[in-house]
Amino acid sequence: MTTQRIIDILEQGQVGQRITAKGWVKSRRDSKAVTFLVLGDGSSVKTLQVVVDEAVREAAQLQLVGTGASVAVEGELVASPGKGQTVELKADKVSIYGLADQETYPLQKKGHSMEFLRSIAHLRSRSNVFGAVFRIRSTLAQATHRFLSGQGFNYVHTPIITASDCEGAGAMFEVKANTKDHFFGRPAMLTVSGQLNAEALAYGLGRVYTFGPTFRAENSNTNRHLAEFWMIEPEAAFFDIHDDMDLAEAYLKALIEAVFAERRDDLELLNSFVDKDLIKTLETTKNATFVRLTYTEAVDILLAAQKGGRAFEFPVAWGSDLQSEHERYLTEEHFKLPVILTAYPKEIKSFYMFQNDDDKTVAAMDVLVPRIGEIIGGSQREHRLDRLEKRIVELGMKLEDYTWYLDLNRFGAVPHAGFGLGFERAVMFCTGMVNIRDVVPFPRAVGQAAF
Amino acid sequence: MTTQRIIDILEQGQVGQRITAKGWVKSRRDSKAVTFLVLGDGSSVKTLQVVVDEAVREAAQLQLVGTGASVAVEGELVASPGKGQTVELKADKVSIYGLADQETYPLQKKGHSMEFLRSIAHLRSRSNVFGAVFRIRSTLAQATHRFLSGQGFNYVHTPIITASDCEGAGAMFEVKANTKDHFFGRPAMLTVSGQLNAEALAYGLGRVYTFGPTFRAENSNTNRHLAEFWMIEPEAAFFDIHDDMDLAEAYLKALIEAVFAERRDDLELLNSFVDKDLIKTLETTKNATFVRLTYTEAVDILLAAQKGGRAFEFPVAWGSDLQSEHERYLTEEHFKLPVILTAYPKEIKSFYMFQNDDDKTVAAMDVLVPRIGEIIGGSQREHRLDRLEKRIVELGMKLEDYTWYLDLNRFGAVPHAGFGLGFERAVMFCTGMVNIRDVVPFPRAVGQAAF
Repeated sequence: MTTQRIIDILEQGQVGQRITAKGWVKSRRDSKAVTFLVLGDGSSVKTLQVVVDEAVREAAQLQLVGTGASVAVEGELVASPGKGQTVELKADKVSIYGLADQETYPLQKKGHSMEFLRSIAHLRSRSNVFGAVFRIRSTLAQATHRFLSGQGFNYVHTPIITASDCEGAGAMFEVKANTKDHFFGRPAMLTVSGQLNAEALAYGLGRVYTFGPTFRAENSNTNRHLAEFWMIEPEAAFFDIHDDMDLAEAYLKALIEAVFAERRDDLELLNSFVDKDLIKTLETTKNATFVRLTYTEAVDILLAAQKGGRAFEFPVAWGSDLQSEHERYLTEEHFKLPVILTAYPKEIKSFYMFQNDDDKTVAAMDVLVPRIGEIIGGSQREHRLDRLEKRIVELGMKLEDYTWYLDLNRFGAVPHAGFGLGFERAVMFCTGMVNIRDVVPFPRAVGQAAF
Repeated sequence: MTTQRIIDILEQGQVGQRITAKGWVKSRRDSKAVTFLVLGDGSSVKTLQVVVDEAVREAAQLQLVGTGASVAVEGELVASPGKGQTVELKADKVSIYGLADQETYPLQKKGHSMEFLRSIAHLRSRSNVFGAVFRIRSTLAQATHRFLSGQGFNYVHTPIITASDCEGAGAMFEVKANTKDHFFGRPAMLTVSGQLNAEALAYGLGRVYTFGPTFRAENSNTNRHLAEFWMIEPEAAFFDIHDDMDLAEAYLKALIEAVFAERRDDLELLNSFVDKDLIKTLETTKNATFVRLTYTEAVDILLAAQKGGRAFEFPVAWGSDLQSEHERYLTEEHFKLPVILTAYPKEIKSFYMFQNDDDKTVAAMDVLVPRIGEIIGGSQREHRLDRLEKRIVELGMKLEDYTWYLDLNRFGAVPHAGFGLGFERAVMFCTGMVNIRDVVPFPRAVGQAAF
């Protein structure tokens, strides 16, 4: 007699085998002679049917056991006459761990709104949709580590608390100790990016990546922004912008492949209940050769579309940042494929990007996918110390704020490149969820720090 | 002609093959007719010897290329007469990416103190010892994800910014936005543990684990404490304290096995230069059956040792927390093996731990290893709502501060258990490093937020 996860029972259980199954009751159906319990334990979206006859039912005092209750069932696996399952469990004994009151348990009834489920974030992972989303989230994280370590990248932890402001982003959280004033001896913030630190480590380890939380104190209450979100930032010595694009494209495809290989059942659930085009979009992306073109070429396409009658809310003009609607037009309507844009105007990109010979653009690249728009942003980095210093001064920043960063290229500078993937955007892309607060278990945003 | 990492060249390169190698000069040796460059790129501690003849040397203007400079070398792999390498690179062309001034580059000379290297944390990963430590750190993280996902655990992200204080730990960091007062609508802190949130998710997904940063605002300047450190916290539904101990033991062994399998050369370097007993200690741990005994039995052993003349700085008495010296006596001197202690007095453990029938102890467990002492702490959790509420009240805590946590066991409670591993302690254990600030790239501690 062994305890197994339900997914193992369903995949490996043999008719005639005696087992103990433990889980939560997903539904209950009664006839006079027999009670059917559908049991799930979170190991997958699949469930085990338990058949409880009258004698066992009475011995177990099952009358209060309904949706949400937790039980252990000892019995024998028998062939199932039902569809979609080969075995079911004929119970000899049912032990009740815990009940879930039918009046007060919020998940007794189905069909709750996403908004309501967000208000019970401590319970929502028990639902089918959120179970699927969070298992896929885990699969995407595993695939990230597997893919990048397979490419020779070392996982590094860059600081969460930082005294430097990577991009002059402005909207940051300050950190103060409740035990001591000036704990760090200087103002300390929550990081907005681990990139500059990752660059330092790429100069030691060659290829590195971060996978950690990053923060923005932006006072924006949208379905695309969080105050706390997770980013993956690979950084590789001896990579140029083309290597960077190749890595980004291969990485995105590896993510999708992992979800297909490991979470097909969750994907099908989400395709049925959340986004009918989910599987199709992911398959197209996985099989596509990503379109690569310059920012300038993209602007020409957008201007031509505008001339042809396509209306955009925001103006299109060379030198302006592309808006989400422009990005989505390119990937969803014009190319109907994932797109990588490169060679952006230097004025709309960060100081650390590699300056192209035209003196107007930098070796930046953004990856755009349907439904999301920009999912990855990266660049080759400027490793030529004189150009880097010149750009910092041009932008009115202070060289002395970047002493250690400049040191990197003062000693043994090499071409290098990297990018950032907002992990929640990748989860949205791979689950079809439309609100970023529904792809992280306990979202943090303006006004929201419950649980 | 392809660009490869140096580890790939050393492992797969064939004599006669034409390649381009890119890396940093680790050392240079000159004779009249030829210059030898030892090239490393961080892909491993191993290096590629490059042989530059007089003509190539002159064409490349190599005179300023010394330790720390970065180059690309095109040439042909030839059989190496040297020890410890089968191939070396005969250069046809050397291109210089960047120099490293011999007067100002801090890593030109060897033999710097750890303290000095800490002051140049942005450069220290270029040294052999820190390269080895950070590669092993990455390997331990990869092994964590591989082992736990192999056991059916889903990786989850619990909040970093939190309004609740998991253990009443006290010393926390407060988070404030620079854009808006009361950003979260309530006081918000940096998390000290993801456990309570992980418990919520284990009730949905069955088996979960966190791997994220945690924070303590403790004003302590020791070689064992950081303000910011990473923790792994598995949490499993239907696990009791014995399952928990089995998981902890198997996990620690999986970590060590990964380092042996993947970082043997780094391990040997550290065994030579950092801790002569490193490999021996790890091998003993990997092959041991961990000793399991109760806290009460451990106290008896310590009292007997004291009676036999063994002096301890801190008093030994049933009901007091064990100090590091007591833990290390048990694992290093008495058993000479890893030890798991269980059944601790409830007064010295947290409110959420499963209450044993003796009414005096809880189902806690601590794993102790040589040189570190406690490396893992965990427990079965109290899932019986009435007992949990009673304990919260007994401890003078407020039930209303734990509404959502109590909800978990109000609906579908099940036995469950978990533990926390301080990742930095695991890295110290597996590298032999004695100061916690030397196993994380950019340490955060009181007075320390540089880089």
